[in-house]
Amino acid sequence: MTETFMRISVLGAGSWGTTLAVLLADNGHTVRLWARRESHADEISQTRENPRYLPGVNIPAAVAVTADIDYALEGAGMVVMSVPSHTIRELCDAHPLPEGAIVVNTAKGLEEETLERLSEVIVESAGVDPGRVLSLLGPSHAEEVSRRIPTSVVVAGSDPDACRTVQSAFSNGYFRVYTNDDVVGVEVVTALKNSIAIAAGIIDGLGFGDNTKAALVTRGLAEISRLGSAMGARTETFAGLAGVGDLVVTCLSRHSRNRRLGELIGSGKSLDAALAEMVMVAEGVRTTRAAVALGRRHSVELPIIETVHAVLFDGRDPREAVGALMTRPLRGETTGPAEPDRRS
Amino acid sequence: MTETFMRISVLGAGSWGTTLAVLLADNGHTVRLWARRESHADEISQTRENPRYLPGVNIPAAVAVTADIDYALEGAGMVVMSVPSHTIRELCDAHPLPEGAIVVNTAKGLEEETLERLSEVIVESAGVDPGRVLSLLGPSHAEEVSRRIPTSVVVAGSDPDACRTVQSAFSNGYFRVYTNDDVVGVEVVTALKNSIAIAAGIIDGLGFGDNTKAALVTRGLAEISRLGSAMGARTETFAGLAGVGDLVVTCLSRHSRNRRLGELIGSGKSLDAALAEMVMVAEGVRTTRAAVALGRRHSVELPIIETVHAVLFDGRDPREAVGALMTRPLRGETTGPAEPDRRS
Repeated sequence: MTETFMRISVLGAGSWGTTLAVLLADNGHTVRLWARRESHADEISQTRENPRYLPGVNIPAAVAVTADIDYALEGAGMVVMSVPSHTIRELCDAHPLPEGAIVVNTAKGLEEETLERLSEVIVESAGVDPGRVLSLLGPSHAEEVSRRIPTSVVVAGSDPDACRTVQSAFSNGYFRVYTNDDVVGVEVVTALKNSIAIAAGIIDGLGFGDNTKAALVTRGLAEISRLGSAMGARTETFAGLAGVGDLVVTCLSRHSRNRRLGELIGSGKSLDAALAEMVMVAEGVRTTRAAVALGRRHSVELPIIETVHAVLFDGRDPREAVGALMTRPLRGETTGPAEPDRRS
Repeated sequence: MTETFMRISVLGAGSWGTTLAVLLADNGHTVRLWARRESHADEISQTRENPRYLPGVNIPAAVAVTADIDYALEGAGMVVMSVPSHTIRELCDAHPLPEGAIVVNTAKGLEEETLERLSEVIVESAGVDPGRVLSLLGPSHAEEVSRRIPTSVVVAGSDPDACRTVQSAFSNGYFRVYTNDDVVGVEVVTALKNSIAIAAGIIDGLGFGDNTKAALVTRGLAEISRLGSAMGARTETFAGLAGVGDLVVTCLSRHSRNRRLGELIGSGKSLDAALAEMVMVAEGVRTTRAAVALGRRHSVELPIIETVHAVLFDGRDPREAVGALMTRPLRGETTGPAEPDRRS
């Protein structure tokens, strides 16, 4: 088979959109990168760098940078969405996507008002065939991909041909894309893990250790799996790159914004004070609200995410909250009724 | 229900045995801690500290320290095994355990010659009822448990009453024990994860990043799950504390000896030179040999563990080996036939 080069539009010139534009250009595609602000587009065009969001990475000439979204979208066979999750609907409402284009969502989150997954938001607002909307997600900090550090991710979609087209367009020697048809599982776990990342950061801020965080990651994955299964996801997805992989990188990495936000809160800052210290969006705050609502809708208990919600929005004391999680009645590891507590 | 205090024998005065002896004494039990060397037992008795393996932790008077194993075992209702995995059989052969005692294995590994799990080794060599031999495993660095940092682990056993007895004896406000009846799954995953930890260390030594390590942890867990399932384990176990949890703490923690060994090798040292730098045993070297043999016995492909084996024992270049893992044919995420590679 021969290599197929495409015309690809990347919407959003944050760290991840910029990284993917560079990667796609590396792979031989013709790329137009859309930045919301004219001054930002000009700065990138002129310096061939994105100093605010991705300093030190050269942006090759094969990436055309523009603030004109219609020009960015013109004739694209693939549209990569890298805008903040809460701006996706407005963007798709306002700008028709090219007919027949494959749309690749790369944002992790849920729409707060509707509790919809982001590919659902795109299908609805852009009026695209569901099989043509895919999500490319997984453990992939932009700071590392842009330095060509080996990375593996998942493309989730219901149409196998579209999945393989995306897999082929993005894959190269340092970026490995696996396909997965469990769109619900991949989107739910990558969204909700941002709440668990905040919890992991709180644990760091409190000065607890690796044991505590390993338990948190495991039990956090278990509660996300319960909710995902209730929504129709497959269990294997939670053990995969979008599940375990993404959770690990987010909870432990020095690059994670959500973990950092939690760390500030764990060390005693208020939510407002912590948010004020962040340059980039921490999606997990919004996701935590949506996740608690989703849990109620599906009658699934989410002890860790509900605790994060109470710490963020109801002023619950982080140390007391972690203590309460540790001293729930003793039980078996898999879900089911609690076993008798022999210590009471 | 009232609290039941037991007479408990802890065999092995390394960092983990010492930590558990202190924890059990904290919980009100009467503990005898056995150290192999007389001079080591004397040192701990006199200083009430274990400076070589657990510096800075006070060992309370409720822990009697001895090098006389028969005295240590006398009248114990529970025997906790914290000796290196390759010494378990010899120990059980030489010293009869008290009649009716519950035996708790806390070592992670496989017997290299027989490929048996450690609870199997104990059942065979000590002639104990299989239901009375349990494994207490999970993400639990001694350095943290001994500082009372919140920790959650699993006790795996086939007899629910024995599981609850162990759960109750060990649990307290900072140490939370979940029960799990999947003994095969818990023992296999905690053993094999030490090979993946060596691989994680190699990635650190090569200077790769969090993305690479997240992919390694995920794909490593997938290959362990395939082998475990072939051996009769339940899939949920791999998503639990002994699986994801232990893998996370071992691959990412600064305390992990196996990760450290891999880091030395990734940065260019030979296996012998790396081993010479380690104070404590890195079980993963022995486990890697056993895991490769187990994979062959069950006809399960273990690409990461086989790569670690080639790097450790056949002098394969670490950087080339990681590159080869990243450029295998593209495929779907869950197991099954590879999808057509569109880039070739």
